[in-house]
Amino acid sequence: MPLSQEPEFIAAHELRDAWPVLSLEERVESFKLVPHATADAFFLSLQAKEQAALILALPVGERRTWMRLLAPDDAVDVVQEAHAEGRAALLAELDGTTRHEVMALLAYAEDEAGGLMNPRFARLRPEMTSDEAIRYLRQQTRQTGETVHEVYVLDSQQHLLGVVSLSQLFRAPSGMPVSEFMVTQVLTVTEATDQEAVGQLFSQRGLMVLPVVDAENRMKGIITVDDIVQVMQEEATEDIHKVGGMEALDAPYFSVGFIAMVRKRAGWLLVLFLGEMLTATAMGHFEHEIARAVVLSLFIPLIISSGGNSGSQATTLIIRSLALSEVRLRDWWRVARREVGTGLALGSILGVVGLFRIVVWQYLFHSYGEHFFRVALTVGTSLVGVVLWGTLSGAMLPFALRRAGFDPASASAPFVATLVDVSGLVIYFTVASLFLSGALL
Amino acid sequence: MPLSQEPEFIAAHELRDAWPVLSLEERVESFKLVPHATADAFFLSLQAKEQAALILALPVGERRTWMRLLAPDDAVDVVQEAHAEGRAALLAELDGTTRHEVMALLAYAEDEAGGLMNPRFARLRPEMTSDEAIRYLRQQTRQTGETVHEVYVLDSQQHLLGVVSLSQLFRAPSGMPVSEFMVTQVLTVTEATDQEAVGQLFSQRGLMVLPVVDAENRMKGIITVDDIVQVMQEEATEDIHKVGGMEALDAPYFSVGFIAMVRKRAGWLLVLFLGEMLTATAMGHFEHEIARAVVLSLFIPLIISSGGNSGSQATTLIIRSLALSEVRLRDWWRVARREVGTGLALGSILGVVGLFRIVVWQYLFHSYGEHFFRVALTVGTSLVGVVLWGTLSGAMLPFALRRAGFDPASASAPFVATLVDVSGLVIYFTVASLFLSGALL
Repeated sequence: MPLSQEPEFIAAHELRDAWPVLSLEERVESFKLVPHATADAFFLSLQAKEQAALILALPVGERRTWMRLLAPDDAVDVVQEAHAEGRAALLAELDGTTRHEVMALLAYAEDEAGGLMNPRFARLRPEMTSDEAIRYLRQQTRQTGETVHEVYVLDSQQHLLGVVSLSQLFRAPSGMPVSEFMVTQVLTVTEATDQEAVGQLFSQRGLMVLPVVDAENRMKGIITVDDIVQVMQEEATEDIHKVGGMEALDAPYFSVGFIAMVRKRAGWLLVLFLGEMLTATAMGHFEHEIARAVVLSLFIPLIISSGGNSGSQATTLIIRSLALSEVRLRDWWRVARREVGTGLALGSILGVVGLFRIVVWQYLFHSYGEHFFRVALTVGTSLVGVVLWGTLSGAMLPFALRRAGFDPASASAPFVATLVDVSGLVIYFTVASLFLSGALL
Repeated sequence: MPLSQEPEFIAAHELRDAWPVLSLEERVESFKLVPHATADAFFLSLQAKEQAALILALPVGERRTWMRLLAPDDAVDVVQEAHAEGRAALLAELDGTTRHEVMALLAYAEDEAGGLMNPRFARLRPEMTSDEAIRYLRQQTRQTGETVHEVYVLDSQQHLLGVVSLSQLFRAPSGMPVSEFMVTQVLTVTEATDQEAVGQLFSQRGLMVLPVVDAENRMKGIITVDDIVQVMQEEATEDIHKVGGMEALDAPYFSVGFIAMVRKRAGWLLVLFLGEMLTATAMGHFEHEIARAVVLSLFIPLIISSGGNSGSQATTLIIRSLALSEVRLRDWWRVARREVGTGLALGSILGVVGLFRIVVWQYLFHSYGEHFFRVALTVGTSLVGVVLWGTLSGAMLPFALRRAGFDPASASAPFVATLVDVSGLVIYFTVASLFLSGALL
């Protein structure tokens, strides 16, 4: 039966669709069935963690091809994702030069520019002419197989003098020395620049590539925008997870084990739960008021959730504005003044709606007894206070966290909601004692 | 006094820092004081909206330089940001060819690939040799001043046959025809591809540039990664705003007027408030239970916020996983089974802690009367139910929204919290009637 003896092939796009639901063994088996022409691109499109797992699951003899397919900065990511003995095994598959570079890059912290850097880049001397430069680069790249983005002009001590793009080199008149048409005002970062700041630079300036220099302006490597796109997406995911009230997962949903998932989510949930216990304590102080006027308890969820929702809004808005540098730390006072106005406006809107709701229900269903209007006033006034307080504290918390050196995104929406719940109860019962003493209380 | 007669200059980086707090008039005045060598880069780093406002605020004679500095796809963004009469004025400043291209691009919807596309790209014929190609490109780019990323190999009907990078062109042996070393498996998008999908492609495959073709595989233009970085950041901001429970602002914090800000935030807040009013109705049904056992009311905020927090977590997680295509619509059943397990685990943890809290407080402060243990059992059991329900409904809501054709990110954390609040009360009082009937109720 010749058909069954033919090797079966799997198209790369089919494997890509099935990939998330496959076990490691199934991934390895399927990967081997992808035609070699498309397996390269497929392999390079995987995340570093998956690349590491895949390579280590292959027989030793088949690892080299895949490991050497990676650029040094990507190889660093793959090595970092492996366990101690895996790291040594992966490094052993690299050629001597690359291994040396990868080991140097491994020394950088993961969230610094240095960790994103590719130490290979095209370089020229300032005195070369455009024709010499093109000939030289053709020869160079033919040997090394590197991809050229921009070409850096360095002196003999590797100091960065200027930059030319391949297009500029192409456009330059024959015979003109590089130093005459290179761009000398070069935007650079250092190895220790935070990767979030690097991402901001790329996004704000629309860059394709950014050179990394040391303190003496000596060229160390380049960061390309494709690496930054992943970093920016990871940072946004981290912020979204934190805003939603959980530790950042740092991995796709289905790649996180059950125990790890529960642990990541239980932590914040427990902290919020312990904070929320203060509401039981606060409510305990108002137990007698509730016993005398049970009608007050009916609006507790409405009051505290309105404070929580307005606080979530404000904190989310400010967290994102801080992350995008639209708002700086020193703007806190301008934001505070603005949010007082916004909070009063939002609180008044909800307060009026709440007041009407109670009055209308009273006329329709006689729900709230003879003192319904005092109850309505209590709820309406409390809403103004609670929403104002929620908005203001939600907006200020990210500033306070950044000032104290924490990540503003830790001021998650649920965290603010919990904070506002306790103070919301105090505001509500204080207003109630003003409006209802002599009547219900 | 020669000093006062010297024109004052403002460094670009100083203006960049001050920019967000300046009025339009101040921006125009300060911008004119930036030295021309750095004004270009500064102008290009501004957002399209700011560029449009700045150009239109300049005298007619000074507009041309800035408008012509923009690549066609960026000019489109700027024109789109202007009002009707502004648009005509801006288009008039472009040269004929560019104006024609910009007007063609304006026809694309803003969130389609066509709207991000640059119609200018470098092209070659397949029969050219590597040396001819380099000579031809040098000549071409010298005339047009374009930046070359990759070079596209087209037949005479503009069909896309393959692609070569400048580096590949450099590396190719002299005399080899382009068709022999071009890459023929080219990843393309069409003009109508959604820009979020384009962003995913760039990020997953680590691309620098992506060609846009029509239905007949005829080359229409290219999208470069620097345009995508901004799109991705905007999409992330939109999702974060929605997760935080507000309409997406679509503009930096300080650029949004007070009225617009209140309107954008009041909308969702009112919807949530109206939903939350159902809690008052639900509580009304349990008024007699509360009157007989006031101690029950003490734990209402604790119970409903635990449901809300676990729901926020689950919904945030799934929204982001859907946005990153880590989880697909058809995975809903796998997610549901998984979240039932997670919800039970999280609920049990909080339930046990809550039960202990009540028992310990009883021994320390005698807070909760003789039936404290039944109260503790009620709270503990309710927590398991409420957290399970919050987790499951929070996780399923984004799927339901996407299935119904809405943006899953609309299932904001506060929205889920409000939904869970009402059902949480019902769960709590149902459990209470089971454990406390005969004792307190």
